[in-house]
Amino acid sequence: MSGNSFGTLFCLTSFGESHGPAYGGVVDGCPPGLELKNEDLQKELDRRKPGSSRHVTQRRETDAVEILSGVYEGKTTGTAIGFLIRNEDQRSKDYAGIAGKFRPGHADYTYLQKYGVRDARGGGRASARETVIRVAAGAIAKKWLRERYGVGVRGYLAQLGPIAIPFRSWDSVDQNAFFSPDPERIQELETFMDQLRESGDSVGARVNVVAQKVPVGWGEPVYGRLDADIAAAMMSINAVKGVEIGAGFASVAQKGSEHGDEMAPRGFLGNNNGGVLGGISTGQDVTVSIALKPTSSIRLPRRTIDIHGQATTVQTAGRHDPCVGIRATPIAEAMLACVLMDHALRHRAQCGDVTPPVALR
Amino acid sequence: MSGNSFGTLFCLTSFGESHGPAYGGVVDGCPPGLELKNEDLQKELDRRKPGSSRHVTQRRETDAVEILSGVYEGKTTGTAIGFLIRNEDQRSKDYAGIAGKFRPGHADYTYLQKYGVRDARGGGRASARETVIRVAAGAIAKKWLRERYGVGVRGYLAQLGPIAIPFRSWDSVDQNAFFSPDPERIQELETFMDQLRESGDSVGARVNVVAQKVPVGWGEPVYGRLDADIAAAMMSINAVKGVEIGAGFASVAQKGSEHGDEMAPRGFLGNNNGGVLGGISTGQDVTVSIALKPTSSIRLPRRTIDIHGQATTVQTAGRHDPCVGIRATPIAEAMLACVLMDHALRHRAQCGDVTPPVALR
Amino acid sequence: MSGNSFGTLFCLTSFGESHGPAYGGVVDGCPPGLELKNEDLQKELDRRKPGSSRHVTQRRETDAVEILSGVYEGKTTGTAIGFLIRNEDQRSKDYAGIAGKFRPGHADYTYLQKYGVRDARGGGRASARETVIRVAAGAIAKKWLRERYGVGVRGYLAQLGPIAIPFRSWDSVDQNAFFSPDPERIQELETFMDQLRESGDSVGARVNVVAQKVPVGWGEPVYGRLDADIAAAMMSINAVKGVEIGAGFASVAQKGSEHGDEMAPRGFLGNNNGGVLGGISTGQDVTVSIALKPTSSIRLPRRTIDIHGQATTVQTAGRHDPCVGIRATPIAEAMLACVLMDHALRHRAQCGDVTPPVALR
Amino acid sequence: MSGNSFGTLFCLTSFGESHGPAYGGVVDGCPPGLELKNEDLQKELDRRKPGSSRHVTQRRETDAVEILSGVYEGKTTGTAIGFLIRNEDQRSKDYAGIAGKFRPGHADYTYLQKYGVRDARGGGRASARETVIRVAAGAIAKKWLRERYGVGVRGYLAQLGPIAIPFRSWDSVDQNAFFSPDPERIQELETFMDQLRESGDSVGARVNVVAQKVPVGWGEPVYGRLDADIAAAMMSINAVKGVEIGAGFASVAQKGSEHGDEMAPRGFLGNNNGGVLGGISTGQDVTVSIALKPTSSIRLPRRTIDIHGQATTVQTAGRHDPCVGIRATPIAEAMLACVLMDHALRHRAQCGDVTPPVALR
Repeated sequence: MSGNSFGTLFCLTSFGESHGPAYGGVVDGCPPGLELKNEDLQKELDRRKPGSSRHVTQRRETDAVEILSGVYEGKTTGTAIGFLIRNEDQRSKDYAGIAGKFRPGHADYTYLQKYGVRDARGGGRASARETVIRVAAGAIAKKWLRERYGVGVRGYLAQLGPIAIPFRSWDSVDQNAFFSPDPERIQELETFMDQLRESGDSVGARVNVVAQKVPVGWGEPVYGRLDADIAAAMMSINAVKGVEIGAGFASVAQKGSEHGDEMAPRGFLGNNNGGVLGGISTGQDVTVSIALKPTSSIRLPRRTIDIHGQATTVQTAGRHDPCVGIRATPIAEAMLACVLMDHALRHRAQCGDVTPPVALR
Repeated sequence: MSGNSFGTLFCLTSFGESHGPAYGGVVDGCPPGLELKNEDLQKELDRRKPGSSRHVTQRRETDAVEILSGVYEGKTTGTAIGFLIRNEDQRSKDYAGIAGKFRPGHADYTYLQKYGVRDARGGGRASARETVIRVAAGAIAKKWLRERYGVGVRGYLAQLGPIAIPFRSWDSVDQNAFFSPDPERIQELETFMDQLRESGDSVGARVNVVAQKVPVGWGEPVYGRLDADIAAAMMSINAVKGVEIGAGFASVAQKGSEHGDEMAPRGFLGNNNGGVLGGISTGQDVTVSIALKPTSSIRLPRRTIDIHGQATTVQTAGRHDPCVGIRATPIAEAMLACVLMDHALRHRAQCGDVTPPVALR
Repeated sequence: MSGNSFGTLFCLTSFGESHGPAYGGVVDGCPPGLELKNEDLQKELDRRKPGSSRHVTQRRETDAVEILSGVYEGKTTGTAIGFLIRNEDQRSKDYAGIAGKFRPGHADYTYLQKYGVRDARGGGRASARETVIRVAAGAIAKKWLRERYGVGVRGYLAQLGPIAIPFRSWDSVDQNAFFSPDPERIQELETFMDQLRESGDSVGARVNVVAQKVPVGWGEPVYGRLDADIAAAMMSINAVKGVEIGAGFASVAQKGSEHGDEMAPRGFLGNNNGGVLGGISTGQDVTVSIALKPTSSIRLPRRTIDIHGQATTVQTAGRHDPCVGIRATPIAEAMLACVLMDHALRHRAQCGDVTPPVALR
Repeated sequence: MSGNSFGTLFCLTSFGESHGPAYGGVVDGCPPGLELKNEDLQKELDRRKPGSSRHVTQRRETDAVEILSGVYEGKTTGTAIGFLIRNEDQRSKDYAGIAGKFRPGHADYTYLQKYGVRDARGGGRASARETVIRVAAGAIAKKWLRERYGVGVRGYLAQLGPIAIPFRSWDSVDQNAFFSPDPERIQELETFMDQLRESGDSVGARVNVVAQKVPVGWGEPVYGRLDADIAAAMMSINAVKGVEIGAGFASVAQKGSEHGDEMAPRGFLGNNNGGVLGGISTGQDVTVSIALKPTSSIRLPRRTIDIHGQATTVQTAGRHDPCVGIRATPIAEAMLACVLMDHALRHRAQCGDVTPPVALR
């Protein structure tokens, strides 16, 4: 199977380009009987929608989603759920200037070299706009996980460039354009972004995602580990360069006596493992942290080459997020939800008859 | 497909437990005509072999591999390559004391809760010994990549607990039991490990892996990204809690003008992207860094529960690596090689007719 | 992967129901650089279109297809090709009478029992109308196979109910509504169908499909055999109950000295094997024959039960093909083309370096 | 995934050649807690064992199977089940005479042309001896299906060359070397085979397989149909050239009023559909019939070419079944069992919460 499908049993197939007529997705494997309507997907899509604040791309898209199949009288039928999101605000001319050049840090060069042809408009298939499909599919997974297992998946912006944002509470996260878990830092972030935008540069970010109330037992040894599939899901998001589960890179300097989470009759006494041991969920929170690189399309002039291999410079006009990380939270949540739902189904397939022998108090 | 197979076209299937009669692997999809003999696999297996220094488990295993199929008169035939590695030095009694308890940080608990039964001897399927199969398969991938494309895959120990080991040269890496890229740090590492072993504790590590001379164009949008598959491959290695590509988490604080690698007619002027843009190889070195947690089996007493949910304590006798990271280098190399070979075949399948239009000088 | 995707490297994902807003498909893995426009798909879709003669369903559908992605400036880009076919002439009321009953021979019963819910309108996902997606995808495969390898895929109606139609020539096949290979039998078929339609009953059919100029070497041992994948592809077509390759069931009574195709320096002296030996193409014509059962929706009253398990009778008004086989030829061609293209890519992936050592004269 | 793996959730990977050291298999995805020992596999292997009568190859193999993993204290653990069957009675010299030639009807030619190299000893990977792995895996599936759902899978020889063998009873099937369902025909079959063997020729056969007590609801639309997967499984068996489900090719001449199985409150009133409607099991017997071609290795001289393309003749000494169909019954049963178990798990994954709404009396 080529690269545009994701998941084993809960499987998402995606298509579309930034400046084509539409993006579309097909979710296959969703259990029947789930109440589902366009609004369920729209709600999540609106969370990542561009133009929601002056700190993100000003491209205007309603991102209106239409479910085309797999739902009958408000309930999923168990057949493939196809949905479509039409593109509206394409300004291909924005790209006229760069069509023959490669933007540093962008996929322009690799796509052309791999395929021999490329859709230069807005990065074509490589555009971060493809993530609308992930968010829509993730909305289905989130809803099923919540209704069937009480699982909650949510995330927040943990760092914006140099500014670390320690977690304070979930309350404020959806109340601000940054998904900041600390309302008191908003002003600081606003100021930083205004200066950044002015400078024509961009910056990276860190996003943390957590899945709560995940039952013990999801995930498969040895290559189908839950954390391995999460790592792939996160690294497949545009601009992601790093993934951590639990203590992540902090584990390197830890002692075993410090890292290994002890247990008591009521459960684990710590969560350095991020809710996964041996590739299988422990029943604790599944905690993931990702690093997003700075947007590659910036207004500053950069050295590059053109499609003839000649030296030149490029700078991107267009409407770009100075920090893709700001809108990455709903996307990371969506990918985590899809992986969890896939493994929920995979676990039920093989171990549907098993009752976990150990009951924690 | 359940979790014991890995790869799309170059596909490895693995079986075996730490204290069963044998480990085995099946490599499917290897092109025909590759010269291959047991020694090619053995050479790599010996690099990860236990008992090679006092700093790793003293379990004595020859890890002798036998190729059972897919090779005829010294050449691969294109059919499935099956191979077997018999276990020799099992001391199941070492585990008598812990059979009814869960080791903190270990998969004991999750396996039992998922499957309702578990092979408690040496962690069964969760044992790091399973990686012999990855290393054997990786040896095939390494050989093919080198002979067909001149690709070289190698790695080194970048950090041992608190001790960072800046890269100095490849020369020393295979000359010392630590895979240290700096011969002058060996003494320091020796001393640290002796004290650690004495203390009965364990420690984490960081391993860096690099693939050189990878052609441009390997990897697929959007979910089948080369870096996404690398992330899954690395996170599927026992004890790995974090994966970085290129600048990794350092990207978070970088500016776009700093991160985005500029280009010149001779190629890229930097490699923050780690040889991957838009999920497709750039033709630069593919650089990966992983975090390995400290060994969970330690000699210090830890709080835990037994299979009846009762509080108890556990400490592991047995023969364990105080730092699994020390032997992880050949394993990480193997996984990277398998992913690259898989994508080399996937790319040839779809783009076998394409000549990259841009020729760098 | 759930049941709505088909193929390994050339992968089709399909969605849509007979009375939903639209059918859609995603073709992933198509090589870049193939010239492709809506008309290429439309041409094949028009061959299977309903309402083209009085002998098939009078449902009026333009079956207008719109390519939504994966094509740029008239050429495939190597990314996912999404396409959509809107439904136009739904008459759901036709089904009011049967919504609560199960039509004998139809999937009504199994869908409801499997999923607990079903889209009763026109059979929902089980409708033969889903085959528009196969035909559209097959058009892409046919075009690539022809342009890249000179492979031609075509078929004809070999039997209509009791009337066997021996092959006479390809010329007439696309000249008549039956895909009959013998123009002189048309009148006989017309008469038979008129009487059948009058009787309110339906009948089965046999369709033969042939792929010409298939290179030697496509197909994989042992489970990925070319003929095994063809069998699955054909049996996945609505109403198909049997598949034969080459001599098929006639092989049962054959002697080995009769069946085994002898060879000469110029090639094979017979084709009992249907162009496949050991699951791999021989370089001869690949010949396939399929049996299609009679349409299950007929106007005659039949004994059945309702959704409460109570005995009742059912007869279908609606607009149905009295013989689904009449329109099955383009569908069978499409499925064969998809399987061949998938294996062409799979073969190139593994054996791209191999030159067949034996040159036939 | 290349061709040596089979199944989605209950997945078999196979390796080995006729004259290599051993055949091996890996069954991944088997639920935990199933009681399993070597004998369970051996029992089925003995049913297909060569040398069991003078009518089959006289190659002497104990076919002793050793389970190497996935079973602990007599129960499956849910991890990969690896098993090995050593080859014992290879007489490679038997093939010296034919190493440079292509046997008509055999895979010699296609393997060499595909891979550029081939293991000529006994057909290498193309040998029917590979089916030991299918039978061993099928034994696991049969046991689980029987214990978990009461499903029984069995088959019989329905035709031997020209001799049709109408079904009389299951009692005699395992009592004779032909798997004949009619004890009174044995003498006739014996005589026929003795004459055939004397003539140096071979003959084809038809085998019927039935799965009883299959629950309603197994199988997936649209491409993952239960019957589509059965067709692939059967066509992947060496020498199979045709597959029928239910009425099969007889459907062609049937009327809809005759073919479509009516229903009553107690269930279906016929089974032309062979237990599958819309690709989903109906709850009736799943009935499959396959055509096996005559053995290609015969003692009569045949025209062929050598590896240099020169005309020559070939006749096979060696020890071959004059009718591979005679031993095909356990193999076909095994493949059907594997497909059913795979779909049982797939169905539980997606529809584990569904109770079929209609209860038949």
